[in-house]
Amino acid sequence: VSALSTNEETRRRNLAAVLGHLHSGAPLSRSEITQRTGLNRSTVATLVGELEQRGIVAEGAARAAGGPGRPSPLVFLSETGPTVLAVSILVDSIVAATFGLGGRVQQQARIDRLRGRMSFEETIVAVRRLALPLLRELAPGQTLVGVGVAIAGLVRHEDGFVHTAPNLGWRDHPLAAGLRDALDREVPVWAGNDADLGALAEHRRGSADVADLVFLYGEVGVGAGVIAGGQPLRGASGYAGEVGHVAVNPEGVRCRCGSTGCLETEIGAQAILRRAGFPEDAGPDAVDRVFQAAAQGDPQAREALDEVGAWLGVGVAALVNIFNPSRVVFGGLLAFLYAEAGERVEAELDARALNRARDETTLAASALGPMGPLTGAAELAFDATLRDPTTIQSTRHRESA
Amino acid sequence: VSALSTNEETRRRNLAAVLGHLHSGAPLSRSEITQRTGLNRSTVATLVGELEQRGIVAEGAARAAGGPGRPSPLVFLSETGPTVLAVSILVDSIVAATFGLGGRVQQQARIDRLRGRMSFEETIVAVRRLALPLLRELAPGQTLVGVGVAIAGLVRHEDGFVHTAPNLGWRDHPLAAGLRDALDREVPVWAGNDADLGALAEHRRGSADVADLVFLYGEVGVGAGVIAGGQPLRGASGYAGEVGHVAVNPEGVRCRCGSTGCLETEIGAQAILRRAGFPEDAGPDAVDRVFQAAAQGDPQAREALDEVGAWLGVGVAALVNIFNPSRVVFGGLLAFLYAEAGERVEAELDARALNRARDETTLAASALGPMGPLTGAAELAFDATLRDPTTIQSTRHRESA
Repeated sequence: VSALSTNEETRRRNLAAVLGHLHSGAPLSRSEITQRTGLNRSTVATLVGELEQRGIVAEGAARAAGGPGRPSPLVFLSETGPTVLAVSILVDSIVAATFGLGGRVQQQARIDRLRGRMSFEETIVAVRRLALPLLRELAPGQTLVGVGVAIAGLVRHEDGFVHTAPNLGWRDHPLAAGLRDALDREVPVWAGNDADLGALAEHRRGSADVADLVFLYGEVGVGAGVIAGGQPLRGASGYAGEVGHVAVNPEGVRCRCGSTGCLETEIGAQAILRRAGFPEDAGPDAVDRVFQAAAQGDPQAREALDEVGAWLGVGVAALVNIFNPSRVVFGGLLAFLYAEAGERVEAELDARALNRARDETTLAASALGPMGPLTGAAELAFDATLRDPTTIQSTRHRESA
Repeated sequence: VSALSTNEETRRRNLAAVLGHLHSGAPLSRSEITQRTGLNRSTVATLVGELEQRGIVAEGAARAAGGPGRPSPLVFLSETGPTVLAVSILVDSIVAATFGLGGRVQQQARIDRLRGRMSFEETIVAVRRLALPLLRELAPGQTLVGVGVAIAGLVRHEDGFVHTAPNLGWRDHPLAAGLRDALDREVPVWAGNDADLGALAEHRRGSADVADLVFLYGEVGVGAGVIAGGQPLRGASGYAGEVGHVAVNPEGVRCRCGSTGCLETEIGAQAILRRAGFPEDAGPDAVDRVFQAAAQGDPQAREALDEVGAWLGVGVAALVNIFNPSRVVFGGLLAFLYAEAGERVEAELDARALNRARDETTLAASALGPMGPLTGAAELAFDATLRDPTTIQSTRHRESA
């Protein structure tokens, strides 16, 4: 590495810093960029010029400065800049969308997925059918730079291999590689666990712009995505956050993972159904009916939600003691459970979490709702571009090529 | 920030990279440093020269190169380089030591601490009495650059304030500030939780040179230190890792934290004593007797260790599911428990952890033993120097001053 390439590294890091600030809150004036990055005005002017040449940003009319000095030109993310495809594979549907930088959804499409009746191969075909029209509608400058996929399962970070996705009935499928083949674009494809990507989305785009955040997501399955010190917690291979399978009740019921008394068996959809007197496999419509009945004052439904809410509090206390987060965000069914039984959740949390850690934690339902994992998938797909904006070829270069 | 100071930053980062490699495995030849840092030969020569001028490294005889080319000079950490004071405050003793870079213990001293009979103020006086002679023995070039303290308690990372240290009977004491006053040296004092510092030590100096590591430490209290993606897990304020207070048994006994059925009540010293038929407060000698009796085949003692070992497995399974670590290291009493009841630990882990995460985890007793938290305290105290070696004044500068 020569002195030249060390300067090159510095330039890349500075470009990444400028783009990162725009990605999280564009538009910004050049002087705001100067303040936020700590770089000087002429360096910022050069960096913005380079991002503009690469078709990533555009400069607009100057914003009148509040203080003294010349008005500073506004820097926008270009409408026709780099684009990613994000896909969320749910039990009963598949959603795909194209996103620009700044978390802007461009086009979105959705199809139903027959519950438990669609194989891995059929799903890949369905994603292709959803995605290709979206990709055809990209404007000339909107280069596709990556694809991100969210799925409820154990996903190896390195290559997007899905080891298990129990709610889809999948085991050992090369999700990222399969999608790359099906889409036939020369871009990287990343896959991630839906709770992990939900956490990333809450961190960057949701209500939880804090360095230490736990996103607890639950439907039938329960998992957590964790942001620790500003970084996603992945573990050695990307399987971290499987809090649904932490044993909380030795007297509890058998879990589909093979263990007994897992948190998932006490706070997942099946726990609500079981306690409300439904068969455990009665499905999401029955869960809706329990919530409706509780809202109308039905005592068994009310008690079911309270009991499950207390177990949710046990789980949150564990997360608070383990992670000392500033915020715990609930997603999926757990957002509704928290809305209905929040007092029971908080009471159990107060009784079980260490005071100091508990005092620093606020609880909230997800601000992004079902868009969370999809938004996180887009963030995942943009990561390489955000780390090194020079991977985007300059428009001039492309025109002459 | 001008172009000059950007170069300055690059230089600092490169100095930190070179020093980091020496700190974890000195001595290295210049060409080994070139390989490990990816910097070119002339840059490495300049950086080594600067570290030498600052009294941090020395160059020795050239090591004959294995391949072609000139022999490359060996770079050592200087024996009289920057030094830290590390202190470990235990229930029954206080240990203090001076460390050089590279984890080298220079001088060490220890005094007994009357169990539960020493106030915060008395402990500060005792640490001062231990430490001042060690500091007086520093050679002229051995500049004290920091102090690190390990303690079993909830410690705020930012300012080393101890909120609670239940085994010492402490609550709300300014440990770092108190020590800074008592030692009267113009250096930063850092305090940290003993399990967190044990994890840091295992990561940098122990058997677990992996990016994802959980160090589970237990005596009467139980806590974990976690390294995730190569970084210590701290949480919003430094209280992360309190896995001893995760609820694992709703039918369990009352915990001193106020909750019920915490992991600590099932795997701490009191669980062993309770199950072996001793009073819970019978102390460490009684715990030793249980281990001896089990080794001699006493059935009640044997069964006590097996049962507690099974609960340890439940706890480890939770950690594996949550953190997907490459390695779980046991410290304190838990290292002995793992040695005696490892099969029960592994069996419960196999039954409860998700297979993929379980397959990637190895378990081990701590390689550092009681030196772990002390070593971690030294690492903590060196962190600022390791991040920016230019904080160490050059010897030449010091001589002319």
